[in-house]
Amino acid sequence: MNDPHSYPHRNVKWPPKDQMVIGVHAIRELFDHAPERLIRIFTVKGKGERKSELLESCEKKGIPIVYTSLDDLTKMAGSESHQSLVAHIRGRSFLDVKEFLEKTEEQERVFVLMLDQIFDPQNFGAILRSAECFGVDAVAWSKNRGCDLTPVVAKSSCGASEIIPLIRISNLADSVEKFQKGGFEVVAALLDPKSESAFGFKYAPKTVLVVGSEGEGIQPLIQKKADRSIYIPMSGKIGSLNVAQATAVLLALNNLD
Amino acid sequence: MNDPHSYPHRNVKWPPKDQMVIGVHAIRELFDHAPERLIRIFTVKGKGERKSELLESCEKKGIPIVYTSLDDLTKMAGSESHQSLVAHIRGRSFLDVKEFLEKTEEQERVFVLMLDQIFDPQNFGAILRSAECFGVDAVAWSKNRGCDLTPVVAKSSCGASEIIPLIRISNLADSVEKFQKGGFEVVAALLDPKSESAFGFKYAPKTVLVVGSEGEGIQPLIQKKADRSIYIPMSGKIGSLNVAQATAVLLALNNLD
Repeated sequence: MNDPHSYPHRNVKWPPKDQMVIGVHAIRELFDHAPERLIRIFTVKGKGERKSELLESCEKKGIPIVYTSLDDLTKMAGSESHQSLVAHIRGRSFLDVKEFLEKTEEQERVFVLMLDQIFDPQNFGAILRSAECFGVDAVAWSKNRGCDLTPVVAKSSCGASEIIPLIRISNLADSVEKFQKGGFEVVAALLDPKSESAFGFKYAPKTVLVVGSEGEGIQPLIQKKADRSIYIPMSGKIGSLNVAQATAVLLALNNLD
Repeated sequence: MNDPHSYPHRNVKWPPKDQMVIGVHAIRELFDHAPERLIRIFTVKGKGERKSELLESCEKKGIPIVYTSLDDLTKMAGSESHQSLVAHIRGRSFLDVKEFLEKTEEQERVFVLMLDQIFDPQNFGAILRSAECFGVDAVAWSKNRGCDLTPVVAKSSCGASEIIPLIRISNLADSVEKFQKGGFEVVAALLDPKSESAFGFKYAPKTVLVVGSEGEGIQPLIQKKADRSIYIPMSGKIGSLNVAQATAVLLALNNLD
């Protein structure tokens, strides 16, 4: 068995999981918006118009390409969904709540999305992508109560995981209080029709919107600490949207004004 | 090798793929909203609070439970994501455009969601779920230009695939014309900022909203035939939402009034 973190033929180290992005779309977005983050690209020889175009752009920018086997890429990524492209990226930098509050103190409008218990990597990725698309200032999440930033998350996010500011939190309930002391209104998205309707809801200039998992929702302590709660009125028989869809709707409604 | 469509020990036929729903949530929704569709449930002996609760409810209603092995369930479903529950359901009935137009002729407001080239089963499922949640009157799609209704779609849709009226179409472009002749305005969702903004957009009383795949979008012929086009204004660096999120946003905006 080869050491899974060293590429035997070329003596190039394999990227650790938290410094890896897979898939053509995610790597393309990263190349377009943060090319300095790309250390090198692992791929296999072969066709694929979009892939070739991306590799050419990388080569022009001086980002090294390492050719390896499909099997190695799958081992490297721990998933078969790499589309023959694995990027080794420079480590992410995370903010803590204090740093974020200092950084945005002078900003008139600040919108933070906080995630509670989002364990599904595809939902996590889709939420990061929506958050980036709708110009959310940061996503706050706790890897103790949610999914870690895996290569599958990065791919599902279409690279947004590498572009959007991330606040890594150890205790979500404590950080809710910190945001409130920093002048933020904390809004919990619930399935409860006794909450305010999200249609027509006016978010405060500084808002933390908390969304929870489909199964478990938002933990009771955070629901209790929240200043307000909202729900999305629905007209079907099935009670609730998938959390990634619900979050996209809430973020879009915030962008209406 | 056993015949994969007959259960050897109990002489119970395995459900064909198009008469199968998997997963606890999807089967629960079906039980709650269309129990007459359930022929029988296949499961394994074992724990799981939600599962037991569901099985008890089924037994009370006289829906037979067949105990089998985990391995058989996986073979039956063609996927490991069955959560130990596979339901054999009575076949879906589909509408054609003509039937649907006749059925809704007297209805003042009718909203149809048309899907073009949605091949990813999880996106297809999530879109069906959003459509059901937001009270869409029917979803029209062509299995020639999109995903078929597989057990994974049914699960991702949380059972919505079995509840929402479905219009199965062989030629999407032809059906666009049929809807237009029936008094419908056809609106294409595009990524093109020259389209009308979805924020503040007023849908006609009878509307067909067409959404396309992320990669390919809506086929040019349908774009050309559409009466209007809309896009979702975004403020991030990444150009586009995932199609399931984008569709949820467009459906929510339609529910605003």
